[in-house]
Amino acid sequence: MLTIDLNCDTGESFGNYRLSAEEEIFPLISSANIACGFHAGDWSVMEHTVQLALKHNVAIGAHPGFPDLQGFGRREMKMAPKEIYQVVLYQVGALAAFVKAAGGRLCHVKPHGALYNLAARHTETAQAIVDAVQDFDRSLILYALSGSEMIRQAQHAGLRTASEVFADRSYQADGSLTPRNVPGAMIESPEISLQQALQLVTDQQVKTLDGKVIPVIAETVCLHGDTAHASGFARNLVEGFAKNGIHVQAPAL
Amino acid sequence: MLTIDLNCDTGESFGNYRLSAEEEIFPLISSANIACGFHAGDWSVMEHTVQLALKHNVAIGAHPGFPDLQGFGRREMKMAPKEIYQVVLYQVGALAAFVKAAGGRLCHVKPHGALYNLAARHTETAQAIVDAVQDFDRSLILYALSGSEMIRQAQHAGLRTASEVFADRSYQADGSLTPRNVPGAMIESPEISLQQALQLVTDQQVKTLDGKVIPVIAETVCLHGDTAHASGFARNLVEGFAKNGIHVQAPAL
Amino acid sequence: MLTIDLNCDTGESFGNYRLSAEEEIFPLISSANIACGFHAGDWSVMEHTVQLALKHNVAIGAHPGFPDLQGFGRREMKMAPKEIYQVVLYQVGALAAFVKAAGGRLCHVKPHGALYNLAARHTETAQAIVDAVQDFDRSLILYALSGSEMIRQAQHAGLRTASEVFADRSYQADGSLTPRNVPGAMIESPEISLQQALQLVTDQQVKTLDGKVIPVIAETVCLHGDTAHASGFARNLVEGFAKNGIHVQAPAL
Amino acid sequence: MLTIDLNCDTGESFGNYRLSAEEEIFPLISSANIACGFHAGDWSVMEHTVQLALKHNVAIGAHPGFPDLQGFGRREMKMAPKEIYQVVLYQVGALAAFVKAAGGRLCHVKPHGALYNLAARHTETAQAIVDAVQDFDRSLILYALSGSEMIRQAQHAGLRTASEVFADRSYQADGSLTPRNVPGAMIESPEISLQQALQLVTDQQVKTLDGKVIPVIAETVCLHGDTAHASGFARNLVEGFAKNGIHVQAPAL
Repeated sequence: MLTIDLNCDTGESFGNYRLSAEEEIFPLISSANIACGFHAGDWSVMEHTVQLALKHNVAIGAHPGFPDLQGFGRREMKMAPKEIYQVVLYQVGALAAFVKAAGGRLCHVKPHGALYNLAARHTETAQAIVDAVQDFDRSLILYALSGSEMIRQAQHAGLRTASEVFADRSYQADGSLTPRNVPGAMIESPEISLQQALQLVTDQQVKTLDGKVIPVIAETVCLHGDTAHASGFARNLVEGFAKNGIHVQAPAL
Repeated sequence: MLTIDLNCDTGESFGNYRLSAEEEIFPLISSANIACGFHAGDWSVMEHTVQLALKHNVAIGAHPGFPDLQGFGRREMKMAPKEIYQVVLYQVGALAAFVKAAGGRLCHVKPHGALYNLAARHTETAQAIVDAVQDFDRSLILYALSGSEMIRQAQHAGLRTASEVFADRSYQADGSLTPRNVPGAMIESPEISLQQALQLVTDQQVKTLDGKVIPVIAETVCLHGDTAHASGFARNLVEGFAKNGIHVQAPAL
Repeated sequence: MLTIDLNCDTGESFGNYRLSAEEEIFPLISSANIACGFHAGDWSVMEHTVQLALKHNVAIGAHPGFPDLQGFGRREMKMAPKEIYQVVLYQVGALAAFVKAAGGRLCHVKPHGALYNLAARHTETAQAIVDAVQDFDRSLILYALSGSEMIRQAQHAGLRTASEVFADRSYQADGSLTPRNVPGAMIESPEISLQQALQLVTDQQVKTLDGKVIPVIAETVCLHGDTAHASGFARNLVEGFAKNGIHVQAPAL
Repeated sequence: MLTIDLNCDTGESFGNYRLSAEEEIFPLISSANIACGFHAGDWSVMEHTVQLALKHNVAIGAHPGFPDLQGFGRREMKMAPKEIYQVVLYQVGALAAFVKAAGGRLCHVKPHGALYNLAARHTETAQAIVDAVQDFDRSLILYALSGSEMIRQAQHAGLRTASEVFADRSYQADGSLTPRNVPGAMIESPEISLQQALQLVTDQQVKTLDGKVIPVIAETVCLHGDTAHASGFARNLVEGFAKNGIHVQAPAL
């Protein structure tokens, strides 16, 4: 039977600020990437989100980002690899404490935002993240952009990986995501999005924006949880997978 | 043979800001309480300080404080016990990650500043800290003010404790420290300070500011590391202990 | 003709986090208290909110709070009066820069949350706020709880004041607001709320929770803008004032 | 008579952290660039430093930086020009409030660290800073790297400028500073440094690292105040200027 992981960035509220419709998204997903207090999330949100994940039997991952709450971790910061290592280790450790205290198990790490993008293309950043994850716990799975330098470095170091694909973003001929400012970057139609997701999961291929079909390793699909629209979109995907006999399951569970 | 622990707050630099003469203090102490990034310290400082502690074979403790860098954690913040629990758990987890990555072992937790003082007298705060430490690792030792509510709650919950005393602060008849704004609060003379430390360690007693002798449990002596003066003071104590056959050793090592 | 000011705390979004239905609330109010980046708000939100206020011809006020974004400024912090002075001056200056750059005029200052409550009862805190406002601009109006120490100190120093009352909180016999944890503290009914507001504005009196009628100086009514419910509530008040011939107007405009 | 301005970055302490030997450097300089709480400084430090500047009759400037205390503003952050504008306006306004409250006058603005460097080469960043300064107060003088894009944009907009040169950094043939990682970048010898400063001020020329002599506009010399060494270095320069009949004076005073 075919299986696929559905992951979602969660725990991105902060203090008085609420983000995302998490009560709706948790029943749909198999992996939750929980923010660790640097780009989003705080100690209270982290504890609550870990409990939500345990309640829904969802694999728990740390979702470390740049230390930039105002920019939501979407702004690249010039940090030396050693600092990247430290920033990731700090955040993974903080989240792991909540998981341990709640009697759960930390399963994976997925870098956030600008850190995710930087690690996808920059070898030393990717290596620093790999080192932090390995030094903390060699059994953790690294979730990263399919085909990226992050995946290569993690595999090279012997870490388990989950190659991430997107159902709501179009792909280019070289396998990269179409930049958001290019027309056609976002897939707005739930039907086309489901079609792309099914092709990715079933055939490990995707039809690019210019009509080619290219191979893509698809082990986890990224869902968005920050809008009511998003959870409807997610539900559509989940139902489409079910109808096609694709089982939703986290790699670590 | 008599033994005593000498602990010092360390890792309190931040970014471009250097604090404390740590290269001088580490050879003298047996326990290092390392700041966790909330009242002081950052990811780089934490990694460096953990390495210093391992190099000097000093027991490593987490030193969590209120989330208030500008106030250095010395300003009491009104937080619910549940938030205290979360704030402590977050910081202990973050530091533990650096210890684990460096191949070391986290030995103890000592609350910082206003959190230390609040926990010394406020039952629910003390309980929240105990809960956080226990939920993270029941084998950790809680360092706290001798005779305090923090010690009582930790012992009540079955945690190991280390009762902290001060060589440079005078005591009052009820066993509390003389408030800093009262004349005679600080012991400026190295000789009198050593005398008090020896009495504390040898007799588990102290002569109070008004001349009484009262019992005090003394398991760890707090040294200060933030000035050149402080390390001279510390060296004087260490030499005094050595001359009197008192062995300096961390409770966990 | 009777006039009343309607003020609302605004500009409380931060980075990626949206708070309040400001597009709906601005057409209803005469005074906007704009967060200054310490308890909420950031440089982008401040600029945007100032522009909204100018567009709607609403009097602009600074809304300084404790430096505690995670606690939304609702957590009391132990700060010396000198620090309170500095914290207020910093925030008022930062907001004033956006007002100046946009070609507007800063009209008032209203402390936020725990700082508002502390200043209402603590003389030295109130004085520190008065000093900061006066040293910055003696023509600013201080908005504060009617009958509070904050109002007394401001008037004593010769500052103009606007005594704030609440339409959705019940009053106690001594003129204070019923604490939120006491039954009956919040007025849920729009009709009773409007009735209380009309009584406050028209008669400068209020019926307390235990049925007495006491005098209250009512110069500005606090509206809430953080929920859709809130803007419906506000609209009800505004329409009620209009029907009763009460003109909504800021004291400075 | 020849005059030159000597400026120094000041007010870079934060909370419990002390930086720089300011009591020693203030008697030597004519312009103080005061940190505004983003990369360094806080409300207390700002108030204190403004008072020091007034006491020593030193021209007060705002020294805005990226919002990155841990990185001391030395890490470039990807911010849109609009955000650069807002970040500068916020900080200039906050500092101006302390200057106003102390009865002083804000004279200039000098961007800090990574923002200074970015503005020196990136047109849109430079323009955003110029806009913020102009929208706040058209009479302010912009201090920036001599020959930089920042200077060009400021002059293009009609702002007064002060072209900054360095006595302790060597120059390259194209007029840029030798990057710090290149041998010979730093001038360690007080004599050579003074010689370069005199050549800059007297001849508006500098001898480059490879022996050419090129024209450089020199209106203000940057001194460092963060070490005891630095103040000795500064004193040497000041004495050298005096011996050569060069008067130290801020452009705005």
